[in-house]
Amino acid sequence: MTKNRLEAFSDGVIAIIITIMVLELKVPHKDDWSALLGLLPVFLSYVLSFVYVGIYWNNHHHLMHTCKRVNGAVLWANLHLLFWLSLVPFTSGWMGENHFASRPTALYGVSLLMPAIAYILLEKAIIAANGTQSMLAQALGSDFKGKISLALYVVAVLISFAAPWAAQIIYVAVALIWLVPDRRIERVLASEHPHD
Amino acid sequence: MTKNRLEAFSDGVIAIIITIMVLELKVPHKDDWSALLGLLPVFLSYVLSFVYVGIYWNNHHHLMHTCKRVNGAVLWANLHLLFWLSLVPFTSGWMGENHFASRPTALYGVSLLMPAIAYILLEKAIIAANGTQSMLAQALGSDFKGKISLALYVVAVLISFAAPWAAQIIYVAVALIWLVPDRRIERVLASEHPHD
Amino acid sequence: MTKNRLEAFSDGVIAIIITIMVLELKVPHKDDWSALLGLLPVFLSYVLSFVYVGIYWNNHHHLMHTCKRVNGAVLWANLHLLFWLSLVPFTSGWMGENHFASRPTALYGVSLLMPAIAYILLEKAIIAANGTQSMLAQALGSDFKGKISLALYVVAVLISFAAPWAAQIIYVAVALIWLVPDRRIERVLASEHPHD
Amino acid sequence: MTKNRLEAFSDGVIAIIITIMVLELKVPHKDDWSALLGLLPVFLSYVLSFVYVGIYWNNHHHLMHTCKRVNGAVLWANLHLLFWLSLVPFTSGWMGENHFASRPTALYGVSLLMPAIAYILLEKAIIAANGTQSMLAQALGSDFKGKISLALYVVAVLISFAAPWAAQIIYVAVALIWLVPDRRIERVLASEHPHD
Repeated sequence: MTKNRLEAFSDGVIAIIITIMVLELKVPHKDDWSALLGLLPVFLSYVLSFVYVGIYWNNHHHLMHTCKRVNGAVLWANLHLLFWLSLVPFTSGWMGENHFASRPTALYGVSLLMPAIAYILLEKAIIAANGTQSMLAQALGSDFKGKISLALYVVAVLISFAAPWAAQIIYVAVALIWLVPDRRIERVLASEHPHD
Repeated sequence: MTKNRLEAFSDGVIAIIITIMVLELKVPHKDDWSALLGLLPVFLSYVLSFVYVGIYWNNHHHLMHTCKRVNGAVLWANLHLLFWLSLVPFTSGWMGENHFASRPTALYGVSLLMPAIAYILLEKAIIAANGTQSMLAQALGSDFKGKISLALYVVAVLISFAAPWAAQIIYVAVALIWLVPDRRIERVLASEHPHD
Repeated sequence: MTKNRLEAFSDGVIAIIITIMVLELKVPHKDDWSALLGLLPVFLSYVLSFVYVGIYWNNHHHLMHTCKRVNGAVLWANLHLLFWLSLVPFTSGWMGENHFASRPTALYGVSLLMPAIAYILLEKAIIAANGTQSMLAQALGSDFKGKISLALYVVAVLISFAAPWAAQIIYVAVALIWLVPDRRIERVLASEHPHD
Repeated sequence: MTKNRLEAFSDGVIAIIITIMVLELKVPHKDDWSALLGLLPVFLSYVLSFVYVGIYWNNHHHLMHTCKRVNGAVLWANLHLLFWLSLVPFTSGWMGENHFASRPTALYGVSLLMPAIAYILLEKAIIAANGTQSMLAQALGSDFKGKISLALYVVAVLISFAAPWAAQIIYVAVALIWLVPDRRIERVLASEHPHD
């Protein structure tokens, strides 16, 4: 019950975040292609952010699947994650508006780093509420993927000031790493419910 | 469970898409009818897009009814569909703002073509996850309606540059084709649950 | 299942409509009371529209309670209702922005009349799908309240051009009529589930 | 059923409120840090309001947990709460836009006071519908936390005109008081479902 409402609320917030990002694509007053072309950086920025928010929804979905008990700490760790995700439309818009310049590219990296940290804190809150013998604790193991992502975001933020295009490559690369839903969790779930 | 959350998330995104389109109808500062009349193209564009997004919600609804298993490929095929749908408010606003001129009319056609392709990919992902003997596979058969729609969108995009009004007629015609919920799926569902 | 998703989608759209109306309250750049006072008509307009959309949510809720079967006609009658409701933020904003002038007040009346008609069509679609012996058919009877509301909206639209304040009084009066959830439906429901 | 839909609708509205607040963070056209720094007051205002709306969601969640019967009075008391919450993005934006000046700080306090009153009315409506022997009636007892919050909001509103920074301290302090989910309710729930 509590878990269902947590999922429904998170889905609602994530659905709104993913959709209001498109509002940054301001409808041009002129009808020529150049007006449209001027929106290309904002559009590319939107595509990248759509994929990232989609990844969070996807992983959140898998994460909650492993969660049986929800307490106050989990509720707030979840709101903390949603807070950082809610800033992605802003940083994404700033990056697109300024054609992937150094500073917006760095801030975008920070806005990816913060929900990544918040996600790890949420995992810890769920493990604390459900026990270290829980499905999630087993599924995550040492969480190599989570740790490497954090490191890559930090590298991207730093490299933004020298070569923002390199930071963009890292953002795309990390997205590709996560695009595949977490096999570790899927594997443990499958072994618990073999006929699911 | 996974399927319910996929439906809930899709409903959320589609509900937001269908509602933020109305934000393109900017409240005029003057209170005369001419101020209102100037919004007529944006309004007509809104009506058409509302019907299209409504059709997608309706068909998505029927499609998910036939889906028993959801995997990672289905989740991402679904997000891919939502991505293209999320661009409809933008293309719809651009078309209305520019009084159904050639280029915005062509782009609007592209923005209908892409979710149509994404919908077919979603159907394929669901069939792949549920088996070719599944309800959906039987219900769709050769999918004449889906294929003819794709062809009509392509024709409309091309014809936009010569006669945008002809493209508009095609958009309205395709909407009418789909307005009726998919009898094929309804028939197969009815034969499986005759007393439903 | 189908009914649940219809309710969830309607709730989503209504929740967005009721919330985006507040975006018409544009944050003033100055911090004095007069800046705030200038927003009073928009605020009053928001309060009235919030109550109206709240009434629709409330009655929609009761209406769906009586509905056991959902078909294509019900889905589209419901989308038709949501379409007209989605225009309320626009007409409400126009009325507030123009300090309850004649023409915006008349259009606001039309934007209340249309969902009222759509609601009656939805009731008819539900009765057609569920049978004339269904709970709803019994509960509604001759639907005096629905018919009197329609008549009052028409009067208000016409009177707007002579005395917009009289139209506002009618809008408030009709809201008060509906504020109380529909006892007829509650009574029939109570007699079917006496211990609910 | 009725309760589920009430929760779902409230979650939807609260999710939208919490997310549209971020739209006040307007994407700057320039890419320098000073453009970003100019948004700091709006950002801080957003953080505070995010926490407050998060607290309401959290407490609403706990409150509904204790509610078994929903009637018309509960539905409207709930909409009344949502109405006042829907104004928080506006007052929050005004306060941030004007760098925590006296008048916006006072109005922000009013916009926290009103949902606090509405929340108490909702509690009363739920107790009236569920009986004074209900879980909630026992859990709340004399509701010291609710009463002290009201008093603090009133103090903050008054003090805003002399020392707006003191009002801000009070807003943060009250947020901290509520950040912890209501132990009273959790305790009573735990004693009723010891193995939940």
